[in-house]
Amino acid sequence: MDRDTVDSVRRLAIDGPLLLQQIGLLGEVGKEPDGGRTRLALSGQDKRARDLLVQWMKELGLDVKIDPIGNIFGILYGKGDSCADALMIGSHIDTVINAGPFDGVYGVLSGLAVARAFRNAGVRPLRPLIVAAFTNEEGVRFQPDMMGSLFFTGGIPIDDALETKGIDGALLGQELRRIGYKGETEPSSLFPAEYLELHVEQGPVLDSKELDIGVVDNLQGISWKRIEISGTANHAGTTPVSMRRDAGVAAARIIVFLRELALSSEGTRTTVGSLRFYPDLINVIPSRAVLTVDIRDPEGARLAEGETKLLRFLEELQTKEGVEISTESLARFEPVLFDEELASKIEEAAKKRGFSSMRITSGAGHDAQMLARVAKAAMIFVPSRGGISHNPAEYTPDKQLLQGVHVLLDVAAGRLLKEGN
Amino acid sequence: MDRDTVDSVRRLAIDGPLLLQQIGLLGEVGKEPDGGRTRLALSGQDKRARDLLVQWMKELGLDVKIDPIGNIFGILYGKGDSCADALMIGSHIDTVINAGPFDGVYGVLSGLAVARAFRNAGVRPLRPLIVAAFTNEEGVRFQPDMMGSLFFTGGIPIDDALETKGIDGALLGQELRRIGYKGETEPSSLFPAEYLELHVEQGPVLDSKELDIGVVDNLQGISWKRIEISGTANHAGTTPVSMRRDAGVAAARIIVFLRELALSSEGTRTTVGSLRFYPDLINVIPSRAVLTVDIRDPEGARLAEGETKLLRFLEELQTKEGVEISTESLARFEPVLFDEELASKIEEAAKKRGFSSMRITSGAGHDAQMLARVAKAAMIFVPSRGGISHNPAEYTPDKQLLQGVHVLLDVAAGRLLKEGN
Repeated sequence: MDRDTVDSVRRLAIDGPLLLQQIGLLGEVGKEPDGGRTRLALSGQDKRARDLLVQWMKELGLDVKIDPIGNIFGILYGKGDSCADALMIGSHIDTVINAGPFDGVYGVLSGLAVARAFRNAGVRPLRPLIVAAFTNEEGVRFQPDMMGSLFFTGGIPIDDALETKGIDGALLGQELRRIGYKGETEPSSLFPAEYLELHVEQGPVLDSKELDIGVVDNLQGISWKRIEISGTANHAGTTPVSMRRDAGVAAARIIVFLRELALSSEGTRTTVGSLRFYPDLINVIPSRAVLTVDIRDPEGARLAEGETKLLRFLEELQTKEGVEISTESLARFEPVLFDEELASKIEEAAKKRGFSSMRITSGAGHDAQMLARVAKAAMIFVPSRGGISHNPAEYTPDKQLLQGVHVLLDVAAGRLLKEGN
Repeated sequence: MDRDTVDSVRRLAIDGPLLLQQIGLLGEVGKEPDGGRTRLALSGQDKRARDLLVQWMKELGLDVKIDPIGNIFGILYGKGDSCADALMIGSHIDTVINAGPFDGVYGVLSGLAVARAFRNAGVRPLRPLIVAAFTNEEGVRFQPDMMGSLFFTGGIPIDDALETKGIDGALLGQELRRIGYKGETEPSSLFPAEYLELHVEQGPVLDSKELDIGVVDNLQGISWKRIEISGTANHAGTTPVSMRRDAGVAAARIIVFLRELALSSEGTRTTVGSLRFYPDLINVIPSRAVLTVDIRDPEGARLAEGETKLLRFLEELQTKEGVEISTESLARFEPVLFDEELASKIEEAAKKRGFSSMRITSGAGHDAQMLARVAKAAMIFVPSRGGISHNPAEYTPDKQLLQGVHVLLDVAAGRLLKEGN
């Protein structure tokens, strides 16, 4: 860096109290009596949060653009108008039902805090900074999740996205128009050179190791399946075990198999989060069981191998338990390797600030994995107390939130104050 | 038998068409569009069925009595007024939700058909014949099941029974008064010497062996439990398997354990019919699982041993999976040994008629198990096609229904035409 640049970097400072205040204000939108908040994508509460974000972007003099799926971008221009060498800092502001205050919001508002640091210091970046909030990251109301960034990076045609029907029967496109966030900006005009996302870990690793910063250099692949088992409903008291076709027993064997699969593999994580029995009566053998399977793995080959092992097990189970089993793929994402140069810069920045850090795999899906299709991307994690997320009890102390945004600022400044690559 | 008796027995004949017609008429009460019928205990539909039964009892000149829990009795007196040496033939006319036509109804109306045989032949029994319909055998609306016969035989105080709250919030005593079936007859005044119950098997054994008659000489003991497992809800992607407290995996291990328990024991049957996960989301580790356990065994010691093994397994599971498990007993009945003399008489009667038969254990609970506390008791089963019951598809051909009632008549005639013992 030349002397001007060094001087500029010195003047850049995060307004910590304002960032925490904005996180608090956004966390009030959609607040429920028990302390959680619900801002499902494109709901009235989502609109209120969007309006607030856009207002704050405009107060910083950012150029606000909206794309056809409602992704919001606030641009702090560099030397020119082109965004081809931009750094984008993004995440989302929609939530799951009864969510905590930080998931997504922390990343978007930290991007805003970085833009504010430039504004307050009167420093103009050499490359544009784009602060982004992607539509429907959570995928609770409309599936799939990460839909906004999926569309943005060309992964789903706009018409398919707009015709998505929500769990409440509403169409995504209609809801987008209703809340006034159907924009015209062509996504490719905003494809950045680099993408950073700051996020709470939503897992227990950093917290249990008492580390400050997670340098996220890869993201697990995900395979979601729905498995339906058909057996025969019969009387629990009168049907000999040898004559049963018990869908419940078959479901239980799948759950145990998946746990053993995870235990026998270094990196595979398996979860059956949802399971329903039919008719679900104490003295009736289940005729039907429906369960979901979530398999994750940072290595693509091992993820595929896990899926294959499961399918082979289901084949055998059909014969063994006399049931019929069908499977449906609900979602599948290959693992993502983030950009090594960005990861190193995050690591260096943490070290310079005196924060402890570790390389970490993201277990959850994030918009960053979509952006990695069109830009160099990486993520920064701060600890989540007890690993709790998607829950009103989600908690990260202010100190750790501010540590994260300082690392983000330092990496962003390093990128924005040198010529685009 | 003397010559008069032999002559009387010859004149006794079941009116088969009328019996089948009455089964059909009662099966219309509470009929639903898809073919099943619902007559939950003490509902308006139950009242309609009761009124029909009482009308048919009165048409036969039976003395109708109602006890304080609404059990209905139609008495064909013998030589005197005392019921101490009576033969009671009973079952129930309430149903589960969306039931078949035979469960319970077949036994009550067959008792009526036996009384009719005496009336039509002008034969007066030496001992009274009591046809009984017990309140709330199914236990769907009010728990526990077999409540009418439980009360009748002194197993539950009347005040407790009347204050039972139904799944719809209604109180049993109020409903009993509303439908006009709160009677005054003291149960002990109707304690019979012997009790017979004719029932469809509700299991697949007779049908799969192509046998006509099941001579039920014992009834399985039942243990019903509710198990609640508490773990921790965490993100499926971010929580290492070693750090999980997964209530769903613990539930699955219980189901598999219970299946292995049944497979390793000759007479034990185990079922998990109901299981729910919370929060029941694809990417959240279940924090809570609630399941029911149904263990049955014709041998009391083995039933208790099965329960002990389960509790020991749950203890170990708490440590192994890091979860907390609580259990609650929902119902428990010791196995019942029916009266050997009555069982032999049933066997003989089937043989004389040329019907094939086998000794069989009742897998389901029946009013007969309660009556066995105060009288010599036994049951007669006819086949259920495919073992299907508690379902509109419950089916027994007319021929087999009539075979059953003929065996019942022959045994009843043998008892009623000799002096009480």
